[in-house]
Amino acid sequence: MSPSVETAEHEALLRLLLSGAPAASLRRLLDSHGSGVAALAAGTRDWASHGLDAAACRALRNPDPDAFGRALAWLSASPAHCLLSWAHPDYPPLLRRIATPPPMLFVAGDPALLWQPMVAIVGSRAATAGGNANAALFATALARAGLCIGSGLATGIDAAAHAATLEAGGATVAVLGTGPDLAYPPSNAGLLARIGKAGAVISEYPPGTPPRRAQFPSRNRILAGLALGVVVVEAAVRSGALITARLAGEAGREVFALPGSIHNPMARGCHRLIREGAQLVETPEDVLETLAPMVRDLACALRGTLAIESGIEGALTRAPGVDTEAPAADAAQVRLWRALGHDPVDLDTLAERTGLTVAELSPMLLAMELEGRVAAEYGRYTRIAR
Amino acid sequence: MSPSVETAEHEALLRLLLSGAPAASLRRLLDSHGSGVAALAAGTRDWASHGLDAAACRALRNPDPDAFGRALAWLSASPAHCLLSWAHPDYPPLLRRIATPPPMLFVAGDPALLWQPMVAIVGSRAATAGGNANAALFATALARAGLCIGSGLATGIDAAAHAATLEAGGATVAVLGTGPDLAYPPSNAGLLARIGKAGAVISEYPPGTPPRRAQFPSRNRILAGLALGVVVVEAAVRSGALITARLAGEAGREVFALPGSIHNPMARGCHRLIREGAQLVETPEDVLETLAPMVRDLACALRGTLAIESGIEGALTRAPGVDTEAPAADAAQVRLWRALGHDPVDLDTLAERTGLTVAELSPMLLAMELEGRVAAEYGRYTRIAR
Repeated sequence: MSPSVETAEHEALLRLLLSGAPAASLRRLLDSHGSGVAALAAGTRDWASHGLDAAACRALRNPDPDAFGRALAWLSASPAHCLLSWAHPDYPPLLRRIATPPPMLFVAGDPALLWQPMVAIVGSRAATAGGNANAALFATALARAGLCIGSGLATGIDAAAHAATLEAGGATVAVLGTGPDLAYPPSNAGLLARIGKAGAVISEYPPGTPPRRAQFPSRNRILAGLALGVVVVEAAVRSGALITARLAGEAGREVFALPGSIHNPMARGCHRLIREGAQLVETPEDVLETLAPMVRDLACALRGTLAIESGIEGALTRAPGVDTEAPAADAAQVRLWRALGHDPVDLDTLAERTGLTVAELSPMLLAMELEGRVAAEYGRYTRIAR
Repeated sequence: MSPSVETAEHEALLRLLLSGAPAASLRRLLDSHGSGVAALAAGTRDWASHGLDAAACRALRNPDPDAFGRALAWLSASPAHCLLSWAHPDYPPLLRRIATPPPMLFVAGDPALLWQPMVAIVGSRAATAGGNANAALFATALARAGLCIGSGLATGIDAAAHAATLEAGGATVAVLGTGPDLAYPPSNAGLLARIGKAGAVISEYPPGTPPRRAQFPSRNRILAGLALGVVVVEAAVRSGALITARLAGEAGREVFALPGSIHNPMARGCHRLIREGAQLVETPEDVLETLAPMVRDLACALRGTLAIESGIEGALTRAPGVDTEAPAADAAQVRLWRALGHDPVDLDTLAERTGLTVAELSPMLLAMELEGRVAAEYGRYTRIAR
């Protein structure tokens, strides 16, 4: 997309979002017309047929100039800022599957991370020191295993998970309940800036949107919807983390909870989740074991082919110790296998070598890693010698 | 039973036990003849028809004099020592229901405790200080709620549960994997003596039987079989406590486990049980809540009547604040209600006042307590004013 075309699309999407039309109407409009520009050009009768009332139609023609200007300024302030719409092929595939997907996402950072298999690590803002250490432990290990770590930028468990992932050189995504330009709490502004550079920050709210109580449960549905599973590290019995876990369960995602001492009030929420059916996990490996088949399924679904699966099965049935090339699989699979060596290479290099995008490579690599054919450390990949 | 009749029955039972005949054969013999004396009088052909081989028949006529003499001496050493057979009406009712009930139990102390609703508290010999404190916490609260606390006299969790129950003035039963006269480990000899005085010590092995590896899992089945449920406080992944828990589950009893820190190796066994379906418990109240309906069922079964249940239902549907007499129930229920006052009374006094035995009163009182009509503290009972 050329810059001017992108700007026109951003402007159209902003008008749609700021019209105040229901999210379902916006998604249907984008489905019908394929882009914000086309939806905006369709006119009042078409808008009304998609459920926009008179006020929304008026706002669509004459958006609030302050909000519109602020959002447009934010989008043009950096090439790393974008607005990802429901109509865009890069809209995160797992998020598409939830009951109420947001029609648009403001993204600061690398939108390709939204395609990487993600696990959310969440928990109490008033976590214990042990809880924060456990969040860091799980985030580090799961990030090194190739999973993207999602969280909500809150104090406590969220911040510990984000920070440990950055430390480990892993991928992390912060899902905000404010506009993408505001840290909440403000003390996490430094962390937010680091995530925007090394990971991705996303929000369904336009830049400048302040924190409001109702926005946080809504944010939690996005976090749960992006992730294959949610790990609750420590949580009180009534807490946002439990809402995220419940939403994850409703969306068919895995819910994991760490147990703790019966004398730790911050373990109560986790214990409640376990009683309600969440998986009790003691180690990051417990999480990986459960997610491995889901990552494979996701990789297959994303690539629209069973080639990876058959490749994995081929690998599993191969005699050990025989150093073969990649098993029978499709061309992309073979290209990736050849691009991998016994020296660690990063994702960008692999993208260059294969001609595949990072979004395509991430799930393929994680599947190969979980299958034991590829090792990943600090975001660099090597073949495992057999 | 007169002393001489009791001695004759003890002698007959000892001969049967020391014959080395299979437990199932002994139970069938006792079922057929109704007592040890009658079974012993039945003669070789009858014994053989119950599955005793020639060696067992010979041993039945000529028991090993050392073992026989030692057991008889132990039984006559104290009026608090007895041998409870499968044929006796006081044989513990829940233990009758397991797959392989012992044909006889040596008892030191009060055999009526074996009729009281029991919860087993078990766990690691190498428990942490926190684990021992939790065992004491649960034992104290559950004993004060009127449950008998069963355990295995081992170091660690077992000893902590027994000792705390004695401290709280509650009822405790030690189930041994040695003869009833031997403490294992020997360091718990003092505790064993206290339990023999204030509670009950039981074993399926004759006095003098030393500790042998195979006897402890066998002991665990008795502990599990006596109890309505088993609480595992701390346990390694491979441990006797997990065997007890598994046996309890197989016998249809409840299995409870306390969670702990993911960094506590002694919590691993508990976490494994929780993953396998054990109930995660944080407080003694969690245990009581689950056991309450089972205690009611047990009370009904023991009294062979639905009177208590209907009494409870009557109480539940009664308008609060109305100080009625006991609701429609049978005579025993009414007698007990009248014997209770607003000043605390102990079990012996209630037994005197009602003419009911302690074994009959215990489950009735616990059912009334769990239903909120009676308060129990330190083994004394009062009506709760409505």
